[in-house]
Formats: sequence, C-alpha cells, structure tokens
Amino acid sequence: MKAEEVLLKIAEEKPLVHHLTNYVTVNLVANTTLLTGALPVMAHAHEEVEEMVGLASALVINIGTLDPPFVEAVLLAGRRANERGIPVVLDPVGAGATSFRTKTAERLLSELEVATVCGNAGEIATLAGLSAEVRGVESLAGDAREATVKAAGALGITVAATGETDYVSDGESTMAISNGHSLMSHVVGSGCASTAVVGCFVAAVGGAGAETVAHALAYFGRAGEVAAKGAKEGGTFEPQLLDALAELARDSSGLDDALWVNEISG
Amino acid sequence: MKAEEVLLKIAEEKPLVHHLTNYVTVNLVANTTLLTGALPVMAHAHEEVEEMVGLASALVINIGTLDPPFVEAVLLAGRRANERGIPVVLDPVGAGATSFRTKTAERLLSELEVATVCGNAGEIATLAGLSAEVRGVESLAGDAREATVKAAGALGITVAATGETDYVSDGESTMAISNGHSLMSHVVGSGCASTAVVGCFVAAVGGAGAETVAHALAYFGRAGEVAAKGAKEGGTFEPQLLDALAELARDSSGLDDALWVNEISG
Amino acid sequence: MKAEEVLLKIAEEKPLVHHLTNYVTVNLVANTTLLTGALPVMAHAHEEVEEMVGLASALVINIGTLDPPFVEAVLLAGRRANERGIPVVLDPVGAGATSFRTKTAERLLSELEVATVCGNAGEIATLAGLSAEVRGVESLAGDAREATVKAAGALGITVAATGETDYVSDGESTMAISNGHSLMSHVVGSGCASTAVVGCFVAAVGGAGAETVAHALAYFGRAGEVAAKGAKEGGTFEPQLLDALAELARDSSGLDDALWVNEISG
Repeated sequence: MKAEEVLLKIAEEKPLVHHLTNYVTVNLVANTTLLTGALPVMAHAHEEVEEMVGLASALVINIGTLDPPFVEAVLLAGRRANERGIPVVLDPVGAGATSFRTKTAERLLSELEVATVCGNAGEIATLAGLSAEVRGVESLAGDAREATVKAAGALGITVAATGETDYVSDGESTMAISNGHSLMSHVVGSGCASTAVVGCFVAAVGGAGAETVAHALAYFGRAGEVAAKGAKEGGTFEPQLLDALAELARDSSGLDDALWVNEISG
Repeated sequence: MKAEEVLLKIAEEKPLVHHLTNYVTVNLVANTTLLTGALPVMAHAHEEVEEMVGLASALVINIGTLDPPFVEAVLLAGRRANERGIPVVLDPVGAGATSFRTKTAERLLSELEVATVCGNAGEIATLAGLSAEVRGVESLAGDAREATVKAAGALGITVAATGETDYVSDGESTMAISNGHSLMSHVVGSGCASTAVVGCFVAAVGGAGAETVAHALAYFGRAGEVAAKGAKEGGTFEPQLLDALAELARDSSGLDDALWVNEISG
Repeated sequence: MKAEEVLLKIAEEKPLVHHLTNYVTVNLVANTTLLTGALPVMAHAHEEVEEMVGLASALVINIGTLDPPFVEAVLLAGRRANERGIPVVLDPVGAGATSFRTKTAERLLSELEVATVCGNAGEIATLAGLSAEVRGVESLAGDAREATVKAAGALGITVAATGETDYVSDGESTMAISNGHSLMSHVVGSGCASTAVVGCFVAAVGGAGAETVAHALAYFGRAGEVAAKGAKEGGTFEPQLLDALAELARDSSGLDDALWVNEISG
C-alpha cells in the first residue's frame, strides 16, 4: 500500500505501536511514532509486556542496547504478537559488531515470525551471511542492494537496508528508494526512527509487503528533504524532521508523487 | 499558593527534585525541572536512593516504564520521603492499560503517603474506579472532571487530570485550568513534564494544596501558549516549550494574570 | 595536541567512542559524539561489553545513573580498555552527593587505569578529599582551581573541573579555559556532553594530556558561544549547540585562535 493511503489509515485508526527499543534513541522513536499519527507505547516488564502487546497493532523490536532481560521481554512480546497475528518489525542494531548482537538477531528471526527486518547495510549483510564492516552500530561499507536481496531470499520476508539509497526486497520484487537527505546521518537514531515509521505503516496495513515498507521509508526520506530546508546541522535538523513527518502525515495529499520508489530487477 | 509567588521561591531556593521516572521522557522531565528553576536528580539504585531522597525537597514518581526493581526503588524512596515529610507526587502512567500498572499505582497509593496524583483522564478515572479507555499510555475518553473529583474524594488528596482542560480537586474545592495549546499533545512526555512542574511547585511550597497544583499546571499551560507562537509542529514546539518555561520562571511578574484557573463547583 | 589538529584527526579516523553512561542525557552524549566527528556506541550487556570495547578507541564512563550491574559492566569494559591501552575517561557524576557515588568513583579510580577525570567542581573536590557542596548532581560551591590541582596531584592523571571557567591540570601544568556561555548551565547534560567531547579527543590522540583535554573543553565552550547567538533559552540552545559543534568540527581552520586556554601557575 502506498504512503498517502497508509497515512490516512493511520490518522483514522491511531494504531498503538509497541516498541521494545534502546534507551539512546527511545525519545526520538516515540516522537516519530506520535507525529506519524500513531500512538507509541514502551513497556518492557515481563509482568505486563504480553498484556500491552495485546492492545497493540504492531510490535517494533530494536536491539540497540540489548541485555538478557530485554531479550526475554522481546521473546515474550514477540510470541504474543505472533499469536495475535500483528506484524513484528525487527531492527537488528549492531548485528555484525558483536557476536551477542548477531546471535540475538538470528535467534529472534528463528524463534519469532518477523514480518520485516529493517537495518543498515552492514547489519543486513551480516544476516545474509555476507561479510560486512560494522563499527559499533554504524555500517561502513558493503553492497546494500545485494545484501537486501540475499537476506530477503534467505529469510523469506521483506527486508530493508537503509542508507543513502534504501533498498527493500521480498526476495522477488526489489525496490530502490531515493528520498532522503545527507543530514539524516547527522542525527543519532535516524535509522531507529525510520524503523519506527515502518512500524506505524505495518500497524495500519496489517502486513509488511515490500511496497508498504518501501513507502514508509520514502515518506521518512521525504520528511528529511523537507526538514533540511529549515536546518543547519544535525542539531536543528532533528526537530525539523519531526515537524516534517507531522506535516506530511496531516496533509498527505499528493505525497506519493514526491516519493522516489523504483522497482529494480531482483 | 499562586504561580508568581511559587516561582520566586523556586528561584531563591533551587530545591532538589528527585525523579524516579521512565526512560522515554526522562530528558524532557529533567530539562523541564531545570528550566522551571529547580535542580533535577535521577537516582534509582537501591544502594543510594534513600540517601538521595534525603537531599531532596520533593519526590516525583512516574511509572511510565516500570518493572519490579523500579517499584522497589520507588518504595524505598517513598518511605524515606514520608519520614522526612517532603511531598510525594505520583504520575500513574498507563494505569488502566495493564493490570501491572493499575495494581502498582494502587499499591503505591496504599503503601505511601502521596501528596498529589497527576495523570491523564483515563488514568485518574481508573484510580477513581470509573471505567476508562486507556490505549497504551494515552487516554481516549471519559469525563475528566468527574474522575478528578471522585478520585480526590476517594483518596483524600489533591488529584489532577490533565487534558485540553485540566482539572484539579482536593475533594472539596475543584478548579478548571484553561491554559494550554493543542501542540502539547504532539510532544511525547508533555504529561510527564507537567507532573515535573508540579514536583517543582510542591518542593518549594512544601505541600500540595489544590491551588498550588492548579497553578503549576496553569504555568505549564501558559508556557505552551507562548511556545506555540514560535513552533510549527511537535518537533520545534518542544524546545520552544522549554524556553517559555524558563522565560516565564525568570520573569514571572504579572504571570498570574495570564493564568486561567477557575474554581468550579465540586 | 590542539583542537584544530585533533578535530582533523577525528574527521579522518572517525574513532569509535564507547560510552557507558546515564539514561538521562545519553541521547545528547551520543549526538555530541557524532557531531564532533566520531562514532558513538552504547553497549552495557556483560555478554558483549568487552567485545565492543575491543572495537573502540576510547571508553567514556559516566556514573550519572549507576547501579550494581552498571558498575560491573564498567569494570569489565574498563579492564578490557586497559588491556588494549585505549584511554579511559571518567565523569564521576554526583560524587559527594551520596556515598555510593563517591565510593564507586574511588573504586573505579583504584581498580582501573583512568586517563582523565572530568567533573564539576564539587565532584572533583570530593575526589581530592576537599569539602564540597554537591546537591544531587549539581556543584554549588568550592574553589574549582584548587580542587583540580589537588586531585591531579593525588591521582597522578589529568583532571578537569568544568564550570564558568574550566580548569585542567596534570599536577604540574594547570590551564584555565574561558570559553563558554551561561546558557550551557541551562541544558541538562552539558557537563556529560563536554566529557563526551573529551572522549572524542582522547580517542583520536590516543592519550589524555592536559593540553588535549583543555582543548576539548575549549572547543566545546566555543561551540556554546556560537550557539548562544541563535538561542533564547536552554530549550533552543541545545540543538544550536549540536549544530555549532558540527560546524566547528567540519571547518576547524582558525579555531585555535578563538580558544582561551591559558596556562596558569599550578
């Protein structure tokens, strides 16, 4: 489903998006969710995480500052999400940087039905079994398109690798998204925020088709383009990015025409 | 006590306000406290939480991302605050959404002497034993005024329900606060921030009378009105809101005249 | 090494700076690191913290919201950093406020080879064995210069006390840094952010000489001066501060001439 239609659905339904995420960018993730038109909730206690997932329309898992109790909360929440049939989004932050992150990402993909994986090129390459250079949580090199297609084929789900060009593939159809602005890489958590937008989109649509994921990323990239006009550097860019997400979400008419989502050969 | 007088006291005394709060909006809560003129501190370790409360003039409890060790820290801190006779403020975030949150809020109200409870209409309705629709941490419906009055009567303390109109009641006197701006609901944590302001006010006053709580919320709402002039959407509104809090706190002369606090029939 | 040269090295090498820090200001710390030109990473799980340190060029420890598992993570990370010979920076947030903080800071200084300690005057005075008034995490009084010189002598490492004037001493040479702006004290975490900049500088230089630390703080203070021109209060100052750090880092030519780093008698 395309961005205009999804954003109207989000505005109508105000779906609850449950985030199990890191403490570095959690505030940006929450505001991104709210200004895209959905309702964010963060709840990790084993005592309530399943009940909270029971109210949600999507679950977004971001392993940016994982530890064992967090992983246990993710498994509890993910199983409940799977029982209810709501989409689960995984951002495998730092997969490839440490074995704990790589193994946790692989474990989650094995034990849960994940609807879509969104990461940077290095993280996606790691999950595709390709060599990757991941320094901390930053991807430094690699062929993002190849990694995306290969990971989608191996996992059998929609996979997105974000970067200067974003790639989305479901193993058959592959899309390149050219929206975005270089200032997005000057804000810590822009990757986490783009995954949060994917969470809002799949919550409203009820599934994570490649077109839906691609349009979520294109809308986020378009917001970056709009935001850049009012910003000097990463500091002033971040509030402008949130404003642009809100403005495009509220008045989405004509937005699809500004999105550069191109199907490319698999 | 009214806002002008309280803000002068805060500026003179710079009271330490100890927050046990959630990791989503903790930074906004801290900056709100600082720019209102008080000193924020966050400390949760069981090894030090009582000692830190020993330095504080108020304790603000926000259960937005609670878990069992957090609740234990809250109980340790709360008991020490009660021993010292400093006001305890409770924001029962998400009460009504999960039974863990509802029961924890009720437990804290039962085991601690809470001076005032500040939440959204759904949370307050839950504590008043009324039916409420709480989706995640967002209140969706309900009669805020009725809930406030009923909760205040049942709990025997000052209760505030924030929303488009804020209501504050001590069971006898009930006030409606009309300050505020719609953009406040476009920032994650504006409710947490308003509770932080209540924490600053009761720290300076040494008690949580209905007028003091109402004026705290009116000052916060007034800051929202001022901030809206310089903002487009929630992203740029948040830094403007912090600026407005600081400006009104530093030059509070005449502020009371801009506050819409009206006593209404209980 | 002076700021211009260090910033060029940071831009070339993009060193990974591993932060074990508090959840209040972690986002500001991460963005400060990124906009200074380095790559931030936050990872605390005992399962991965040593492996992540293995990728880093410096470790920054900030005890702002410490608890026992955090301290254990710090010890694991610190020992690995020492084995690898990368610089360890300690910000002893709240030392002097509670005995848990004071003892933890002393324990870390005893069990780890710390390259430099950066704190406010009260925290540094506490570590120097001088009397100090620390309310929460705020320093209220004390002779910052005396505390810095005495702590540097006692610890045998470079020590910095930040405030209206920053002081840096290695026990022999002592410098006063006059850059900065009063709005910096209106942002929660500006001290944490200045320590993060020190982390970036020592990561690139590979050591924490007094000149390097002094120039890190002077660059941060200079960014505050630039930022103040576009800001009203703490709220709008924070994004401007991040912008200024990025602008000065990207175009650092001539920066050293704007820095007020003066050697004073020990």
